[in-house]
Amino acid sequence: METKLTEETRVESDLIGAREIPASALYGVQTLRGIENFPISKFHLNEYPLFINGLAITKMAAAMANYELGLLTKEQKDAIVLACQEILNGEHHEQFPVDMIQGGAGTSTNMNANEVIANRALEIMGHKRGEYQYCSPNDHVNCSQSTNDAYPTAIHIGMYYSHLRFLPYLESLIGAFHKKGEEFAHIIKMGRTQLEDAVPMTLGQTFNGFASILRDEIRHLNEAAADFLTVNMGATAIGTGICAEPGYAEKCVAALCEITGFEFNLSADLVGATSDTSCLVGYASALKRVAVKVNKICNDLRLLASGPRCGLGEFNLPAMQPGSSIMPGKVNPVIPEVMNQICYKVMGNELCVTMAGEAAQMELNAMEPVMAQCCFESVDLMINGFETLRTRCVEGITANAERCKIEVHNSIGVVTALNPIIGYKNSTKIAKEALETGRSVYELVLEHGVLNKEELDTILSPENMLKPVKLDIKPRK
Amino acid sequence: METKLTEETRVESDLIGAREIPASALYGVQTLRGIENFPISKFHLNEYPLFINGLAITKMAAAMANYELGLLTKEQKDAIVLACQEILNGEHHEQFPVDMIQGGAGTSTNMNANEVIANRALEIMGHKRGEYQYCSPNDHVNCSQSTNDAYPTAIHIGMYYSHLRFLPYLESLIGAFHKKGEEFAHIIKMGRTQLEDAVPMTLGQTFNGFASILRDEIRHLNEAAADFLTVNMGATAIGTGICAEPGYAEKCVAALCEITGFEFNLSADLVGATSDTSCLVGYASALKRVAVKVNKICNDLRLLASGPRCGLGEFNLPAMQPGSSIMPGKVNPVIPEVMNQICYKVMGNELCVTMAGEAAQMELNAMEPVMAQCCFESVDLMINGFETLRTRCVEGITANAERCKIEVHNSIGVVTALNPIIGYKNSTKIAKEALETGRSVYELVLEHGVLNKEELDTILSPENMLKPVKLDIKPRK
Amino acid sequence: METKLTEETRVESDLIGAREIPASALYGVQTLRGIENFPISKFHLNEYPLFINGLAITKMAAAMANYELGLLTKEQKDAIVLACQEILNGEHHEQFPVDMIQGGAGTSTNMNANEVIANRALEIMGHKRGEYQYCSPNDHVNCSQSTNDAYPTAIHIGMYYSHLRFLPYLESLIGAFHKKGEEFAHIIKMGRTQLEDAVPMTLGQTFNGFASILRDEIRHLNEAAADFLTVNMGATAIGTGICAEPGYAEKCVAALCEITGFEFNLSADLVGATSDTSCLVGYASALKRVAVKVNKICNDLRLLASGPRCGLGEFNLPAMQPGSSIMPGKVNPVIPEVMNQICYKVMGNELCVTMAGEAAQMELNAMEPVMAQCCFESVDLMINGFETLRTRCVEGITANAERCKIEVHNSIGVVTALNPIIGYKNSTKIAKEALETGRSVYELVLEHGVLNKEELDTILSPENMLKPVKLDIKPRK
Amino acid sequence: METKLTEETRVESDLIGAREIPASALYGVQTLRGIENFPISKFHLNEYPLFINGLAITKMAAAMANYELGLLTKEQKDAIVLACQEILNGEHHEQFPVDMIQGGAGTSTNMNANEVIANRALEIMGHKRGEYQYCSPNDHVNCSQSTNDAYPTAIHIGMYYSHLRFLPYLESLIGAFHKKGEEFAHIIKMGRTQLEDAVPMTLGQTFNGFASILRDEIRHLNEAAADFLTVNMGATAIGTGICAEPGYAEKCVAALCEITGFEFNLSADLVGATSDTSCLVGYASALKRVAVKVNKICNDLRLLASGPRCGLGEFNLPAMQPGSSIMPGKVNPVIPEVMNQICYKVMGNELCVTMAGEAAQMELNAMEPVMAQCCFESVDLMINGFETLRTRCVEGITANAERCKIEVHNSIGVVTALNPIIGYKNSTKIAKEALETGRSVYELVLEHGVLNKEELDTILSPENMLKPVKLDIKPRK
Repeated sequence: METKLTEETRVESDLIGAREIPASALYGVQTLRGIENFPISKFHLNEYPLFINGLAITKMAAAMANYELGLLTKEQKDAIVLACQEILNGEHHEQFPVDMIQGGAGTSTNMNANEVIANRALEIMGHKRGEYQYCSPNDHVNCSQSTNDAYPTAIHIGMYYSHLRFLPYLESLIGAFHKKGEEFAHIIKMGRTQLEDAVPMTLGQTFNGFASILRDEIRHLNEAAADFLTVNMGATAIGTGICAEPGYAEKCVAALCEITGFEFNLSADLVGATSDTSCLVGYASALKRVAVKVNKICNDLRLLASGPRCGLGEFNLPAMQPGSSIMPGKVNPVIPEVMNQICYKVMGNELCVTMAGEAAQMELNAMEPVMAQCCFESVDLMINGFETLRTRCVEGITANAERCKIEVHNSIGVVTALNPIIGYKNSTKIAKEALETGRSVYELVLEHGVLNKEELDTILSPENMLKPVKLDIKPRK
Repeated sequence: METKLTEETRVESDLIGAREIPASALYGVQTLRGIENFPISKFHLNEYPLFINGLAITKMAAAMANYELGLLTKEQKDAIVLACQEILNGEHHEQFPVDMIQGGAGTSTNMNANEVIANRALEIMGHKRGEYQYCSPNDHVNCSQSTNDAYPTAIHIGMYYSHLRFLPYLESLIGAFHKKGEEFAHIIKMGRTQLEDAVPMTLGQTFNGFASILRDEIRHLNEAAADFLTVNMGATAIGTGICAEPGYAEKCVAALCEITGFEFNLSADLVGATSDTSCLVGYASALKRVAVKVNKICNDLRLLASGPRCGLGEFNLPAMQPGSSIMPGKVNPVIPEVMNQICYKVMGNELCVTMAGEAAQMELNAMEPVMAQCCFESVDLMINGFETLRTRCVEGITANAERCKIEVHNSIGVVTALNPIIGYKNSTKIAKEALETGRSVYELVLEHGVLNKEELDTILSPENMLKPVKLDIKPRK
Repeated sequence: METKLTEETRVESDLIGAREIPASALYGVQTLRGIENFPISKFHLNEYPLFINGLAITKMAAAMANYELGLLTKEQKDAIVLACQEILNGEHHEQFPVDMIQGGAGTSTNMNANEVIANRALEIMGHKRGEYQYCSPNDHVNCSQSTNDAYPTAIHIGMYYSHLRFLPYLESLIGAFHKKGEEFAHIIKMGRTQLEDAVPMTLGQTFNGFASILRDEIRHLNEAAADFLTVNMGATAIGTGICAEPGYAEKCVAALCEITGFEFNLSADLVGATSDTSCLVGYASALKRVAVKVNKICNDLRLLASGPRCGLGEFNLPAMQPGSSIMPGKVNPVIPEVMNQICYKVMGNELCVTMAGEAAQMELNAMEPVMAQCCFESVDLMINGFETLRTRCVEGITANAERCKIEVHNSIGVVTALNPIIGYKNSTKIAKEALETGRSVYELVLEHGVLNKEELDTILSPENMLKPVKLDIKPRK
Repeated sequence: METKLTEETRVESDLIGAREIPASALYGVQTLRGIENFPISKFHLNEYPLFINGLAITKMAAAMANYELGLLTKEQKDAIVLACQEILNGEHHEQFPVDMIQGGAGTSTNMNANEVIANRALEIMGHKRGEYQYCSPNDHVNCSQSTNDAYPTAIHIGMYYSHLRFLPYLESLIGAFHKKGEEFAHIIKMGRTQLEDAVPMTLGQTFNGFASILRDEIRHLNEAAADFLTVNMGATAIGTGICAEPGYAEKCVAALCEITGFEFNLSADLVGATSDTSCLVGYASALKRVAVKVNKICNDLRLLASGPRCGLGEFNLPAMQPGSSIMPGKVNPVIPEVMNQICYKVMGNELCVTMAGEAAQMELNAMEPVMAQCCFESVDLMINGFETLRTRCVEGITANAERCKIEVHNSIGVVTALNPIIGYKNSTKIAKEALETGRSVYELVLEHGVLNKEELDTILSPENMLKPVKLDIKPRK
């Protein structure tokens, strides 16, 4: 991002020196330095609206607390709060041009917010941008704060909103699997363990299984996200609260609760908390757990739908696009495939978050920016993937009931149902003979006179193989 | 493990054929196949007593449930229960020689347990080993079970006991840090962010911070471990409960509760649960979170104790061994170093668990054995590391109080405390001059007449810099 | 990307059905499906110009080979080649809107290229877009190809160009370290092992060390990149070469060499090669090796420059921005910090590539798109990071020579130099006394009469401690 | 390992103090401290014979170089060399009881070697253990060395021997796949991309593909292992060579070459090299590449052999053990499964190595011990896995030729072969009709009169679909 110096400018200065700032910019000299120092990635703050909102909420809460303590005038407080509110309404987001991946432990991001809010507040108060004597990025917007408490708090808030945005997509996907579970409740098919034919089940059980393992993850995600509601406002620089007044931290947290309606808590040990980014590690791990399961589900979707003629072919995924530039008529499971890839990306991001999380040193972790970028990215990818998977794949799945039934009838695995009656050893003999001769278990059992036809029909009836049953047949092991 | 065929043997057979088993072995033919098929690693079942106990408890509970349902005689049940009790008492563990890393989704481990328990039960009942018509590994000990429910349940139980074993070591380490926190509560030192001098704090705050970030992990570990208390007994082969009778699953879980005193639950969806190993992924991730923090703490211990003359030297780690084969008198932070390495190993294991966890296919995850091995290994390493770290390092740390104090006095960072009074911009000027001239902040503030001596002494007194304060000094920004 | 249907359109159809395409689009119906099916990430083809070039080169080479075999007319070949050349000149890149992360194993990307090139060729030939009877995306542009050979080949070419683009940035960084190595060649400082004072060295040796460990990586990167020059053109669908004529593969590879000047080879086993993405795994690992070293270097830069008063302070990193929103005058090592974060991201990407690489099944790896995205992203991040690190940090580093010298004089580690003369055990005694009394090694050696002053001065002269020496002093161990 | 103090002892002392050593121990006080300080893992030096040999070779080479420089007497040199030779002959390995995972950057391991060799040399010279005035662990065995050069050099040597031990197992596995490739050369089967039916191939091509992708890895492994032949002997403490004489490093490297017959090189920059462990990172990554491929192969073995009746069933893996404790007759792919798990473990170890590799600080990487442990472990696991996979699985695979042929005949994918003649669009129509009606491509082509029977038979003959062909049939697109 080049600053065009032909346009009108104002001059701002910092520790390093003076610089011209475009008059149109709400941001100031420190944002400019951030832009110039970190031309790193494709990820810029202005693409992460929930994080920008997190910054605005943090600054609003601090202003409210500072006003209560007499550290801001009413006019300053009102202007800062209004500026923050505008940001929450979606305005000024383009004024956040710094790279998400930055050195300085988030100082450029924090100062970007401080400068935009200060300049907008100045305008609201009737002053000009840059007249920081009336409302300064550092002394007023950042009053009683350090990057070291404001930045992680803004990440926490942004991630918590991301989490809340994510849940309905997960729930909708669960719902779609569950609905298929009901739709396919009466389709008998072979279950498989270790890819080998096992015993019968229903296709509905398969899809309900997908739904239920994902449903368990909501609790884990919520547990992980709950950590975001603990913040270290008032820690200031290193957790000791230097430059903050007694009572500020509590007032600030109360203001956060008031603004958001969430139940924020103050960290019990602000020194420990200030260098600790484990809530990001925890949430990234929670997303990874989801990815592990979604990967398994997508692998199963692809495998069970494989074919059309030389695969398992138990059901059909909707055809979304020609599958091949060379093989006519080929249709591929492109939607589960893209979801798989999202899962790998989420796992890669989790490793990045872990390694960065481990890099904390003494009173701070300077590597938090990339952790935030990865967490926001992973949630966004998951949301896009889930919506795509649900609408373009799961909801359109149709079953091949006849094929599924034939599998069961042909299978040797049904011999398992004889176990409680004739014992593992006798069953094994029949299974072995079936395997070697290609004949059916049914036929062999009758031929050997192990059971009579009525008994056998009872044992092998689907309703008796799909759940625990007590049969009235005498064991003869 | 070679089977010595010169010794007395008995003959057992399975699907594959007949084999001679050493007469002295409680295990049988399937264990023998497991030994021969998996000469893989240095990790054998008999080195994981809590897992063997998990197997014994699982088998005991199943026997109790089966007896209630009339599927075992009282004699059989009593013998199986007694055999399991002997295992819980530490007997027969040497009879579990199979490799922890095995194919077959744990079937060799499950059959190892079934065979040992069956043969020991036979002896208790007055029969000979191998007379399986009286008590069979498959039909009796494994009655109403599959490897697919018994094996993960045994892992859950074993891991839950491992977790309970682990917690006191974590708590003792936290306690040791906390005690140092109290001991060092009055030692003023410089805090550092991004490795750069920041503002003053106490050495006690450093150690309390270590304690408090670790304390938070107890909750996360407990949350992760709680999942182990949900089991899929009654799922049998794939979750449908084939071969099990109605009510068996509930009775079995009740028996688990009775035996252990823990509150076990049955999985809500046995099909979904049977291929799902995410509780191991979750616990491995919880251990990783701990490792991330312990790594940071050990890095800090090494860094803050660096020297003796050209480092930070804030405190001393106890000297455990000569540090160098060439540099006389050198003492190295060997204990934190070994703890760091354990953390890396734990993180590597977590990746292994994740990748194996992702390999579930359809109704089972055949990769669970390596997941279990990694989880048990990680807990064992953590326990050994924590005990070593606490007793051979943390408890013996002594502070260099004088050096810490001098740092603070020399520092520029104390200028931060002037912020609320003279503003960020004025403070910056003084900081810059101090940096350029090498002079002290104190001296420069007085020289420039920004504050009088009394005011300055008030602001810079340690008690006013270590926590939020309201000073009665008029701001002059 | 929404297709605005108010604008003029043409109709195209595929296996799935007919769709309206914006008349302005060079791409066609399959690209449209790709856009709609994969609204996944922030990464679109058009942001990866070297990859688009790889596609153009692949298609150009195939057209040349097909023409030689009589499968394209001269007019068709010329038009396709010209269209590809335009793309190589930077034109039409905006016509590649599909998401880099896509299902279908790259079919959407391959068809995007086929469609853009076909339509542009049609225009060149004087036809209208969509008149595919004259030049079809499938039958002509994709002639003798499948996505399964064209797509990986394009990735190989794109990645090889990325590699070539990357090397000069790495070399410049190495050069910058080397230059500092020369500049600081005469500054004596303490070396440290395990963070503890060791023995003297020069600051130049530190920086030369950085240069030399990075220099080794050029070879590893080149070895990894060399794999990109082996391609599977002619494999078509699964490696058997179905639909391709004898000689096509060789002619196509020859054309690739002619166009690029590189020495491409044909895979020895096209079936094995077609599902194999290990060159991406290998290059990602090579980048990770670099990241591991750069991480270490950046950690060292931050640690050795720590201070300004309470750290190691051996040298100064240029001040790039105010370091803190609260701590006046604080300057942080923001550039190494952002480079560290890039390294973590690169490592996360490597894991993603590994996991996706492992997901190959039978004759293909459908997960290649995310592997390509990660590899291109990692190189881009590395380039941006290296340029930033070099220009905004390394080149501006200044040494604190005096402070470095004082460290050495104060150190106990110099006692090591006495080892060959007085033995490890005697040296240890002196070291221990120095440590306990706070006195200098020099003083103690003289006091104990172990060596005379002349001998001691010889042994401890810097020139004798910085390299292997043969001193003419009699050992007295 | 408890030191039984009831047995006879001798007293040794170090920097920390005096300790009793069992008279039977060849090791001394520093080994004892290592044992006591690091009760960490199940991995002890004495289980890694190639690493112990690496230590012996290093010490032998150093002794030879030191003797040439006049720093050891002939008697000392001869005794040290003989002691080392005994170790190489497999003696005294039980005298290496320290944990592989240790703090101190390998000092305990290096001192363990120094002490064992010194005491054994003393005995050879006719002295008693502990009479170190005649041959000291530090002054003589460790002469001109530091842990910081001797330890990594020993790891390099040990790993290079491990690599050489590993290669034949890899080659045998490749050979087994290749042999199956020949055996199955004439079995036609369906190829599949993205799990969907693609076009025909032979089962031989499948197995040759496995062989060929693994064969490529030999080069990568060799490239990675070649780095082990560069050593930093002469670096001593930090790379400056303090305490070493000019020429020592070169003589030492020459001695290494003489002893081993390998071509060792000296690192170009000893300072850079001494903190650099990237050859371990590189070798771990090379092993990971192998694991990625072996994982894919084992997944394919399991998938293609799935069944027996409801899977793909193209071939049969030898039955190694009953597959289930409940499902009679079930046979599972237990050997590929255990190999998969080894691959996950190898990948987890690679992450551990990476993270530890990244932890280098200034002049050393104290985390090298765990890196060595992981690398040795991974090679051992791979060797065990490959031998098991080859002998217990691959060599016994039998094909289901008839089933494979039927697949091809039933498939729609053969329509691809019509592409060059009738064009992609026409082929697509036929494919679509076949899919919708369940009829065969062959039948439909004839019915629609697109081609005559002779033409069709030519195109669809296996020999024409399995490789590039030029057919004499006029295109009619």
